[in-house]
Amino acid sequence: MTIPNTQPISQRIADLGIAIPTLPEPVAAYIPAIRYGDLIQTAGQIPIKTGVPIRTGTVPDVVSTEQAAEAARQCALNAIAAAAHAAGGIDNLVRPIKVTCFVASPPGYTDHPKVANGASHLLEQIFGDDGTHARAAVGAPSLPLGVPVEVEILFMAKPST
Amino acid sequence: MTIPNTQPISQRIADLGIAIPTLPEPVAAYIPAIRYGDLIQTAGQIPIKTGVPIRTGTVPDVVSTEQAAEAARQCALNAIAAAAHAAGGIDNLVRPIKVTCFVASPPGYTDHPKVANGASHLLEQIFGDDGTHARAAVGAPSLPLGVPVEVEILFMAKPST
Amino acid sequence: MTIPNTQPISQRIADLGIAIPTLPEPVAAYIPAIRYGDLIQTAGQIPIKTGVPIRTGTVPDVVSTEQAAEAARQCALNAIAAAAHAAGGIDNLVRPIKVTCFVASPPGYTDHPKVANGASHLLEQIFGDDGTHARAAVGAPSLPLGVPVEVEILFMAKPST
Repeated sequence: MTIPNTQPISQRIADLGIAIPTLPEPVAAYIPAIRYGDLIQTAGQIPIKTGVPIRTGTVPDVVSTEQAAEAARQCALNAIAAAAHAAGGIDNLVRPIKVTCFVASPPGYTDHPKVANGASHLLEQIFGDDGTHARAAVGAPSLPLGVPVEVEILFMAKPST
Repeated sequence: MTIPNTQPISQRIADLGIAIPTLPEPVAAYIPAIRYGDLIQTAGQIPIKTGVPIRTGTVPDVVSTEQAAEAARQCALNAIAAAAHAAGGIDNLVRPIKVTCFVASPPGYTDHPKVANGASHLLEQIFGDDGTHARAAVGAPSLPLGVPVEVEILFMAKPST
Repeated sequence: MTIPNTQPISQRIADLGIAIPTLPEPVAAYIPAIRYGDLIQTAGQIPIKTGVPIRTGTVPDVVSTEQAAEAARQCALNAIAAAAHAAGGIDNLVRPIKVTCFVASPPGYTDHPKVANGASHLLEQIFGDDGTHARAAVGAPSLPLGVPVEVEILFMAKPST
């Protein structure tokens, strides 16, 4: 399922027909991603597309697990966009390291990993053999703006030159 | 709103009239902050002041969003105190990198970012242009001691000499 | 209570009569632990033993705080197994740095630290004076498979040779 990394990430993304979103403007001291050494930590990303949440509501009563997985994919797209900006270009990203996925869900929900797979599968598509990552997926009663999922990602970047 | 970093952090804090709390004694293997390389990770800090939570209860029914933001500021003060201790002095802290903010809140709450701003604004005040940071803000049904907010911060420190 | 580190971790574990579990096979892009530099980040580990959760249900109504602390210990055993695999052997682990513990619990629960102590005390037993770590413990309405607790750990490893 994974692809050997024989081409730049930007070319792979183009080949896959994936569009990386443009980045919203940062607000005050809170920024969407920060570089320290060769690591890039993104903020918690919510499934916003062109400024609007693609879904709101808890899982699985309002938003299905499948819809939440799509939302997690959107979060990961936003995280990649933020990390690429902090790295000075997407081809400067080496790989994801850690994904943390919060799923807005009531007591009794158990399919958090299926939701998080929406983010993990995107990383696998884009980074190929270097897409492996550690992951935590947990529930939350509520998330900002009422979104069903929030995802943060720690990336490794190429050394600065 | 940000201030160029032309003076030590300790002087800036004094000028701002901010008091950094003294640190509670660590309990067993769990310590309030740990240094590894040039990074300092704090424990999850709760809004304790002189040994007592300044607020308890969930947001927004018992504790208002504004009161929770004040509590998040107290968490951040405690985190700075813990990190300063691990760094061998507050002037050895370079900048915050990542803030994670858990807000005790029921389903339907959406203003987690406003609560987290209590921590972010303090970091901006103290660290000026170097106060920018990535941040995640999420809900939790319950937190230790019944507090409304818990904040952990990853800092960068000056290299050891 | 802590033991000076005068012997390899594998010997200490044998002396303590602790069994480190064998690792489940990784699924797709999501792996149980990843090394980057001299750090090893585990995935969020759940209290699975020989393939089955040792407890399910929320704390404290279905699972007592004491039982959840035992489950947190099992999570930490799994985290150590995952980190040891990523490090090329348990004696290549230097120390824990950060523990994050999510406790499946309803509003009003306050004893998250007692649950997290199940993980912290194991780390103290195994790593002795080097077992100190920063920690965050928070509530979650629900966790994967309905388990009462999920624990992730950041470790430091010996430099690669």
